[in-house]
Amino acid sequence: MILDRIREPSDLKGLSEAELSELVKELRSEILRVTAKTGGHLASSLGAVELIVALHRVFDSPRDRILFDVGHQAYAHKLLTGRRDRFETLRQEGGISGFTKVSESPHDAITVGHASTSLANALGMALARDARGEDYKIAVVIGDGALTGGMALAALNKIGELGKDMLIVLNDNEMSISPNVGALNRYFRSLQVQSWLQGAEERGRRVLERISPRLYDLADRAKEAAKLVLHQENPFYAWRIRYVGPVDGHDLKGLIYLLDHLKALKGPTLLHIVTKKGYGYKLAEEDPVHWHGVGPFDPSAPRKGKSYSWSRAFGDALVELAEEDPRIYAITPAMREGSGLTEYASRFPERYVDVGIAEDVAVTTGAGLALAGMRPVVAIYSTFLQRAVDQVIHDVAIENLNVIFAIDRAGVVGADGPTHHGVFDISILRAVPNLKILAPKDAAELRAMLKAALAIGGPVAIRYPRAKTHPVAPGTWPEIAWGTWEILKEGSEIYILAFGKTLEYALAAAGQDPRVGVVNARFLKPLDEALLARFAREGRKLLTVEDHQLAGGFGSAVLEALERLGLPATVRRLGYPDAFTEQGPIERLHQKAGIDAEGIRRALAEWGVFPNAVGKTA
Amino acid sequence: MILDRIREPSDLKGLSEAELSELVKELRSEILRVTAKTGGHLASSLGAVELIVALHRVFDSPRDRILFDVGHQAYAHKLLTGRRDRFETLRQEGGISGFTKVSESPHDAITVGHASTSLANALGMALARDARGEDYKIAVVIGDGALTGGMALAALNKIGELGKDMLIVLNDNEMSISPNVGALNRYFRSLQVQSWLQGAEERGRRVLERISPRLYDLADRAKEAAKLVLHQENPFYAWRIRYVGPVDGHDLKGLIYLLDHLKALKGPTLLHIVTKKGYGYKLAEEDPVHWHGVGPFDPSAPRKGKSYSWSRAFGDALVELAEEDPRIYAITPAMREGSGLTEYASRFPERYVDVGIAEDVAVTTGAGLALAGMRPVVAIYSTFLQRAVDQVIHDVAIENLNVIFAIDRAGVVGADGPTHHGVFDISILRAVPNLKILAPKDAAELRAMLKAALAIGGPVAIRYPRAKTHPVAPGTWPEIAWGTWEILKEGSEIYILAFGKTLEYALAAAGQDPRVGVVNARFLKPLDEALLARFAREGRKLLTVEDHQLAGGFGSAVLEALERLGLPATVRRLGYPDAFTEQGPIERLHQKAGIDAEGIRRALAEWGVFPNAVGKTA
Repeated sequence: MILDRIREPSDLKGLSEAELSELVKELRSEILRVTAKTGGHLASSLGAVELIVALHRVFDSPRDRILFDVGHQAYAHKLLTGRRDRFETLRQEGGISGFTKVSESPHDAITVGHASTSLANALGMALARDARGEDYKIAVVIGDGALTGGMALAALNKIGELGKDMLIVLNDNEMSISPNVGALNRYFRSLQVQSWLQGAEERGRRVLERISPRLYDLADRAKEAAKLVLHQENPFYAWRIRYVGPVDGHDLKGLIYLLDHLKALKGPTLLHIVTKKGYGYKLAEEDPVHWHGVGPFDPSAPRKGKSYSWSRAFGDALVELAEEDPRIYAITPAMREGSGLTEYASRFPERYVDVGIAEDVAVTTGAGLALAGMRPVVAIYSTFLQRAVDQVIHDVAIENLNVIFAIDRAGVVGADGPTHHGVFDISILRAVPNLKILAPKDAAELRAMLKAALAIGGPVAIRYPRAKTHPVAPGTWPEIAWGTWEILKEGSEIYILAFGKTLEYALAAAGQDPRVGVVNARFLKPLDEALLARFAREGRKLLTVEDHQLAGGFGSAVLEALERLGLPATVRRLGYPDAFTEQGPIERLHQKAGIDAEGIRRALAEWGVFPNAVGKTA
Repeated sequence: MILDRIREPSDLKGLSEAELSELVKELRSEILRVTAKTGGHLASSLGAVELIVALHRVFDSPRDRILFDVGHQAYAHKLLTGRRDRFETLRQEGGISGFTKVSESPHDAITVGHASTSLANALGMALARDARGEDYKIAVVIGDGALTGGMALAALNKIGELGKDMLIVLNDNEMSISPNVGALNRYFRSLQVQSWLQGAEERGRRVLERISPRLYDLADRAKEAAKLVLHQENPFYAWRIRYVGPVDGHDLKGLIYLLDHLKALKGPTLLHIVTKKGYGYKLAEEDPVHWHGVGPFDPSAPRKGKSYSWSRAFGDALVELAEEDPRIYAITPAMREGSGLTEYASRFPERYVDVGIAEDVAVTTGAGLALAGMRPVVAIYSTFLQRAVDQVIHDVAIENLNVIFAIDRAGVVGADGPTHHGVFDISILRAVPNLKILAPKDAAELRAMLKAALAIGGPVAIRYPRAKTHPVAPGTWPEIAWGTWEILKEGSEIYILAFGKTLEYALAAAGQDPRVGVVNARFLKPLDEALLARFAREGRKLLTVEDHQLAGGFGSAVLEALERLGLPATVRRLGYPDAFTEQGPIERLHQKAGIDAEGIRRALAEWGVFPNAVGKTA
């Protein structure tokens, strides 16, 4: 195998054209083989193979910096930069990350996972390089989806103004996770003479032929030639970015040829390439949304999962609510499928908007909808809500607007690792006045909470994990008494206060022991202070358990409430310590943090309580 | 006065051209008169008078929605919408807000204070309007500075894609707070045939004359005429936004004429007007940066303040550090003057960048600089750091990058009110692993902390208030033992744990009472757990005081530490309750929250301690 000979990207320099073509095939099959075992971002990584080979052939990493926006398309990059022997550990506990990660390899220029950050990083690097009088090259790979993020657009604005030397490769696959949105993307489409599916390779070659003679000129007479490749009607012109393209992103020879020339240019240049997500794996080409991020599968006979997720439970409930209430309006920042909104979007297209990978816009669009009389529901992952904190405070909470936040992927998320764990939302949101925070124990309670949130008004956040749950029958709308916790099991000495995912651990740990009670602390804000006060007055010890950072989290709220009430009580808190949690299976991460049944038992043991009958283990 | 006759904006409809011109003059002098007493955003409000009169003449507020980005330019709007009798209460305790505020008037379409949010709000309103089958108009006023914010660009992208009906007025004054940056703004400049100062009125008329005949066509043959006003080379073309301009934003008659025509168009239209900040008040025209936001002044003989601020103390220290350390690099999101960076920027232009009103870009540019070997210092207000929370977590903290956050305006900020109080940063940042949080008691300690932050590495946030402080001699670099609190006064029963601004209150409250000690709890993370443990073991009561929300704040960190250490102690926490704090003088806000000397004394009294000798009151 050619791949066996690649230890460092510099090993690419000596390969023949035929060997490079062979290498591309080997990379694809290795990516497919390993991803089938580990799960991962298959489609985007398959689509970027030629680009990555070409970049490493032309640039000199790590001296030159190659930045991958989101970083999930870089599996070929990992295979070419000394991580082939560890590639099978992709996304596994203790293994290599599914994204680029600075601490993993000198070839990973940025640590990433969220979209639209690469250009600001590149701007910083270019400023540093120039301030230090260094002369390395900076190449950024960014998808069309990531360019819907305001942060990327704002950084582009500054890069253009300063004329910083860098190559930006716009990897345009007409699709980020959900089909892409935004006027710019429609504009990109208009730049493409033909649709991809009709003879893409031929078209790509033609475009390249058209551009290449100009590039010859360019090497000699850069100034004049620059005008030739500059599209005057192009938005990048206003941004003072030199624009080249679109070209075929699967034509390896053409890409190398082009990058070689563009590398010699000074100032910011954007190369627009067109690729196909999942390229080379037919199933992924045909359904790139499904194959964007997948769990392990059998490449020869893959089946889509049929299990019922919390996301699905939310989406099903929202469809039913929207049928009854014409004010419901769903908003997603490019996460239709992930948030369980596929059916909703097809049923209520007139009350649905995907704003692109722009979480800040998602939240404030919610504010505008609420101001105009609607009841918007912003479906957002916990980790991505971090990108819209000010919008929650400034645009929604100050005026106590009727916006519901359906916070998916709350808690650790597993293989996506520290960039994606949803373990900060409670600390952040708890400080925001007017905002309420709820966490259901099951799909029925989620439905009750959605209904209650609509009834009580103002901003309400409902958080639930990346996990399976049990479906409930349509029309199930249990009542929930606002602000109340639920005692699942009485205890004579200790109450475990848990919510969501950790409740099952608490029940298992308590077993049949009459000393240990379990409470579903489903209202994280406001807390059920009446119950809390009762426990304190009765001298019960309290053990809080949360799938969240300890700093400022739920346990912290309990400590604060007891201080406010002036009721001292013995409290122990379980949750994540003050460190980033690495990737790994969710249950393992719970175990390592000691928030699982065993960890809870250990905490009880410190109080001298050893539940006599061990309940079901999680 | 004409203004006496305006109770509602509809009263404008009957005014003659001459009366409208007179009204504009009256509005300007009223704004100048009142702002001289109250302070406020004078320059931008003076610059927008004609535009606001024209908008209210043409549109029907509140049926039509008029949104002001940032909302600080809308004083004329307040005067025209039934708030003239309260205008003298502008920015005062219990008075009207310096920004637009939904809960203040039905004519204020959004509650605002931070930039770049208007377009996402307008998108939400347009979605709601269309979903409900309503037909009102939406007009958005946004400055060129706010268009450097990614959120505005991303919203524009979606508005263009959906073709939502709205009028966007780009109020281009070539200046937001600091002189504007970004390629787009340089592009706007290129659209302007002449510089403003050379016969702007004539030029504006000429531009209008050139455009007006086309607009006549437009009314009849919109489709064809649309092509005429569409600038093909314009970035808004790629965004599918109809572009008209630039026109003179101080030509009232021209504006009314134009708005009247544009109102009839469907789809998104951007009208680019050119105005002058401070128009009509010569001093403000000449120095709009100084006159952007001012305190009370004497309009006939104003003097710039000479007092020494925390911002200045930071800027002076940074200049000295940068002289010694070539790795220092300062970043501001459009707040050069406010952050005290004016001298630094002129001394070290090669190690300084203003990224525009794009806090997310500011933080991640810091990440890029750190990855490339520099020691970036991001100077940012507490309230604006809310706009870059994910960038702090995802781009900086995960890899423990060497980025210093100089957090200005921490704590309540006074007249700017709830949109601007910096009372969430501790709760938000405390949850972020690897990040350290410090708060100096004076300028010397600020310098010590900056030096210590550089030495310890990783991300460090240093927070200080909007306040005056005492300058220290250049070259003053005291040492600070990392992670240690400072006992300012020993106490036999109680220790008050305070930091920054509240320390003086604590000292005043403790007076000479030997029972009450005072600690400078300058390390908010990590806490001085050794000292805390000693206090707990010695049975001391602890009173925490913070100029910050109680939920998740410093007092909460103390409770958590005691729980972690397993050392019960009696703790009382003072800080802001779970509500937004309104505008008012800073000391009054401290008083109302009970974090001033009197409030601390009340808290001590609850423990039966009445300091016998009353110290200096704050």
